[in-house]
Amino acid sequence: MTESHEAKDTAYEINQRNRVKREHHRAHYDYETVHAILDATPFSHVAYMIDGQPYCTPKVHWRDGTTLFWHGSSVNRLLKANGGSAPVCLTVSLLDGLVVTRSAYHHTANYRCAMCFGTARLIEDDDEKAAALDAMVERLYPGRLAGLRPNTAQEMKATSVVRMEIEDASAKVRTGGGSNAPDELDYPAWSGIIPVKTVIGHAVPDESNIAEPAMQGIDQFTVGRSLDDVLAGNAG
Amino acid sequence: MTESHEAKDTAYEINQRNRVKREHHRAHYDYETVHAILDATPFSHVAYMIDGQPYCTPKVHWRDGTTLFWHGSSVNRLLKANGGSAPVCLTVSLLDGLVVTRSAYHHTANYRCAMCFGTARLIEDDDEKAAALDAMVERLYPGRLAGLRPNTAQEMKATSVVRMEIEDASAKVRTGGGSNAPDELDYPAWSGIIPVKTVIGHAVPDESNIAEPAMQGIDQFTVGRSLDDVLAGNAG
Repeated sequence: MTESHEAKDTAYEINQRNRVKREHHRAHYDYETVHAILDATPFSHVAYMIDGQPYCTPKVHWRDGTTLFWHGSSVNRLLKANGGSAPVCLTVSLLDGLVVTRSAYHHTANYRCAMCFGTARLIEDDDEKAAALDAMVERLYPGRLAGLRPNTAQEMKATSVVRMEIEDASAKVRTGGGSNAPDELDYPAWSGIIPVKTVIGHAVPDESNIAEPAMQGIDQFTVGRSLDDVLAGNAG
Repeated sequence: MTESHEAKDTAYEINQRNRVKREHHRAHYDYETVHAILDATPFSHVAYMIDGQPYCTPKVHWRDGTTLFWHGSSVNRLLKANGGSAPVCLTVSLLDGLVVTRSAYHHTANYRCAMCFGTARLIEDDDEKAAALDAMVERLYPGRLAGLRPNTAQEMKATSVVRMEIEDASAKVRTGGGSNAPDELDYPAWSGIIPVKTVIGHAVPDESNIAEPAMQGIDQFTVGRSLDDVLAGNAG
């Protein structure tokens, strides 16, 4: 467990909200681990509450330091219902494998999960919003902006971007094989790890592309490469 | 949009909670679409609330008709804080591709998402819990139970299973290419779809396996096959 005396600028402080209660030996609070999980996919889930009802919505997110951003839409409704800002939890989880053992009880999964807590706020400032949207494109497709039609004033107005300072966060990571207790060893079922990963498929070009289009930011999405790897390379 | 007059036994009723507000042409409420998404991965996210704070936690879920099940742990805390039951939202989302266009504004993603609303309750009855746990193993690994050490009384006591009747639900699905408006056509950036999929890797057998272990429920996880396909085959 990482509940150590790390400097505040390298790890999230542990409190009642983010402390991992179960299997705390799998918990991490350091920026490096939490941020690597946040950066391994653009796909996250945001939990929020409207009129006593929890909602869980998938989002495309991106990160700058300890600040998270995501696209609006449902959030307008959320923020309207909550006076301009709202407590949320943004979670990124990656399934890395199925772990099968010779007892039903010990079956589990390998995964990486980062849970981030904070207050969601709409970005009101136009320049800040434009910079955030540019950062999203650059994060996923570095160098691509130069070949794009710039956003119009109408598009910018139609786009909501949410910003959340990560107040605290935790990561939980499981790797490796399963528990195989002595009383299970004689049972016949196969035991082991079935890894899964999210990989890039064959790109489908739009038929309206110009001849020899600009491939900056796209070339690295090669067939069979894992999405994690591509995004880690983009960030590096 | 599927906001039609379907019989209640083939689609979820549409109400204020589950009605898809944005891009409602991508919305589906029929059992077939919603359940196919729920069954395409064992990995979901559950949103719930404790003391005014939303939480979003990954879970392994499984389904029987319009009833969802998942493993407890954090839920004990949730249910204790809420008097034995709690409103939740369980969401399954699959990222199917990145959609890149010649304007930043039209970049999007292909995905399948199912959001399910209901009340989470701990299963208290021992037989019901045992049946639910067996159903989880059979759902992921059909035929595997016979080769496993049966659960002990202590293990059953240590395991929490949550049941949620789906009161209402919606699915949202995006497929296909991006918008390429006339004013974007002369820009040089490549436009198209970068598909992604979650595939099975090389299984890692536990070194304690017996010679020629029982492969029932495992054999279908072949290298390179998509997890969706395996699970659809299991269900079929």
